[in-house]
Amino acid sequence: MTSWVRDPAFARDQPFGPQTLPYGVVDAGDGPRVAVRLGDHALALPSIARHLGDLAELVSGVSLDPLLAATRADWSGLRARLTSLVTQPSAPTGAELVSLSDVRIPLPFTVGDYVDFYSSRHHAENVGRIMRPDSDPLLPNWTHLPVGYHGRSGTVVVSGTPVERPHGQRRGKGGPHFGPSGRLDVEAEVGFVCGGPVARRVPTRSAAEHIFGVVLLNDWSARDIQGWEYQPLGPFLGKSFATSISAWVTPLDALATARVAVPDVGNPWLPYLVEDTPWGLDLRLSVEWNGTVVSRPRFADMSYSCAQQLAHMTVNGATVRPGDLFASGTVSGPEERQRGSFLELSWGGRDLIELADGQTRTFLEDGDTVVITAQAPGEDGSVVGLAPVEGTVLPAVDL
Amino acid sequence: MTSWVRDPAFARDQPFGPQTLPYGVVDAGDGPRVAVRLGDHALALPSIARHLGDLAELVSGVSLDPLLAATRADWSGLRARLTSLVTQPSAPTGAELVSLSDVRIPLPFTVGDYVDFYSSRHHAENVGRIMRPDSDPLLPNWTHLPVGYHGRSGTVVVSGTPVERPHGQRRGKGGPHFGPSGRLDVEAEVGFVCGGPVARRVPTRSAAEHIFGVVLLNDWSARDIQGWEYQPLGPFLGKSFATSISAWVTPLDALATARVAVPDVGNPWLPYLVEDTPWGLDLRLSVEWNGTVVSRPRFADMSYSCAQQLAHMTVNGATVRPGDLFASGTVSGPEERQRGSFLELSWGGRDLIELADGQTRTFLEDGDTVVITAQAPGEDGSVVGLAPVEGTVLPAVDL
Repeated sequence: MTSWVRDPAFARDQPFGPQTLPYGVVDAGDGPRVAVRLGDHALALPSIARHLGDLAELVSGVSLDPLLAATRADWSGLRARLTSLVTQPSAPTGAELVSLSDVRIPLPFTVGDYVDFYSSRHHAENVGRIMRPDSDPLLPNWTHLPVGYHGRSGTVVVSGTPVERPHGQRRGKGGPHFGPSGRLDVEAEVGFVCGGPVARRVPTRSAAEHIFGVVLLNDWSARDIQGWEYQPLGPFLGKSFATSISAWVTPLDALATARVAVPDVGNPWLPYLVEDTPWGLDLRLSVEWNGTVVSRPRFADMSYSCAQQLAHMTVNGATVRPGDLFASGTVSGPEERQRGSFLELSWGGRDLIELADGQTRTFLEDGDTVVITAQAPGEDGSVVGLAPVEGTVLPAVDL
Repeated sequence: MTSWVRDPAFARDQPFGPQTLPYGVVDAGDGPRVAVRLGDHALALPSIARHLGDLAELVSGVSLDPLLAATRADWSGLRARLTSLVTQPSAPTGAELVSLSDVRIPLPFTVGDYVDFYSSRHHAENVGRIMRPDSDPLLPNWTHLPVGYHGRSGTVVVSGTPVERPHGQRRGKGGPHFGPSGRLDVEAEVGFVCGGPVARRVPTRSAAEHIFGVVLLNDWSARDIQGWEYQPLGPFLGKSFATSISAWVTPLDALATARVAVPDVGNPWLPYLVEDTPWGLDLRLSVEWNGTVVSRPRFADMSYSCAQQLAHMTVNGATVRPGDLFASGTVSGPEERQRGSFLELSWGGRDLIELADGQTRTFLEDGDTVVITAQAPGEDGSVVGLAPVEGTVLPAVDL
């Protein structure tokens, strides 16, 4: 039985086949509409509202916000209905399928709070060695809790948005210097989009009630600004100029086959961090710099899962709201070519990174483009794609 | 000429007289309405919409959000119109005045990003001495930039909201312990509510275009949780459980007489931090613990102004949006009884603080109430009040 969707990219052996069905927003010139991605096309969900029953109202607006504010039962119900509608032989009445190349794709939801964790032991150790060479690379708290901090939600942008090189203060002879960052970097991360009722103290076993789905995330970082400003209260302007996320949010349900246990951190968890079922994810990331794959980080190497991060983030009574976004921290593995930042790949700017065209790099130059992609194992041998997150560096403006 | 408002607290020698006119939201049972505070009463602005012309639509909703999204010209125009209406001898047609004791007062605006600075030299030095006794109390960057970090906007609550004692990890023998914080503290701060068009790189001279008004802010802090978690990425769960703000936002225009220069930090500013006109503020704060005034911090001692903080926060190209909130950091002066946190007043828990009823304290106990108030000099010898921020500690829940 063949689907009515005539797109060779909408197949089980392709990353955006019927096993994936990520949600986003498209605008074909008639305003933003919620859509589901089918291969290289998008199905505008308002066009098939009549087939969605009560769930239609969750996808009738201009963003994913109402869907995020619904419940896990609604999310699973909608996914089941859509799976049926897009795999049937004939098109549902009214279905409007548009090519992704013909639409504008805005940020798909309103970001509430944005939190960034630091949950790769390899990344934390590498950064510790580079930035604090005289002390233990891993601080004592790291193996007991997922270290994290709040970032700027107002500068979260959708994949494809150009990123202007930021200005700022950096360490200099005779006092700090001011100017465009000379050490602009990326951090390849995975972001978790929260949903469900506003909640406090979300135990690890309830993660799926409050995590709607997954995006890739590039935590653009100006290392010279960060290095001067970050003591004692953490990163601020070195990060707050831009954070890019995928245009499409992959539902957590699509990643059921990818779930794996996180590696042992070396000491027992406090009870609130223990998981009944594993919430690590076997996502294989790829970082492309001007078309050259420079790194292939594996998310299964991360020491804290999304369920542990959410339990930690709310254990003090803080609420989590629909639209809150939290990110894993840079995904780095034990091997050199599994590092998720150029700071690590160039070892603080010491080593040159070679691109396919013969050029070399340490940090980003104006005009450079970085694309982060990822795939996960899906059911029945299929592959589940996470939508890419892409950005090109624009020169600093004249001040 | 006497105003039609029959409230002895609505007088020029009182903090909420016609020289102040702060904005908030009241709900008398018929839903939230934007209001202006007149002494111990509130005037519901929709009730006088016919007298406000085009500006009425900015105050016709359920929060201050549309007003914040307007412009400085609109804010000044509305204030001038209201000043005229509330000081005239007869009540404007339709005017509904309600007693503050008869209404529910919700959070008056939707908080976008929340940033907390660290701009009191005395506070930074005190905390440095207490928490890092073996190193220089002031880090090298402190005199060159307003150190700051992002906090959690989703847990900003309005004055009067009880604050439940948070759970968390803290340093312990044989590894971290988990339980209710034993070192719950306050930080007396001043918060700045942003407005105007979305902007990047706001120079100090444009501060008034993007700062709508001022609130008092209590940055509740669990010192034991913070002390264990905060390295290397800054405070997180030790702060994110609750941040309280005044129910009423005092317009920046009401503080024109209070403007003063900030004290010299000891080295020249980089050009983007230089002010043409001073934006420090002569606000006199008072911190009451169960009714005893334990501290009288002076905001004029702060080393960075709101204009410098906003210029810094956006100099990297980050946007500022209406509803973004940034706070000064704990206001502490050079004298012991000018310290804005109990961490400092008790010197890390070493010294007992005496209350009027003979009880002593180091950190907060369950049932304790803290009220922060402030006044500023107004025009013609009047006094301008900032609405209090108050909170009572509830016991930790059983987990």
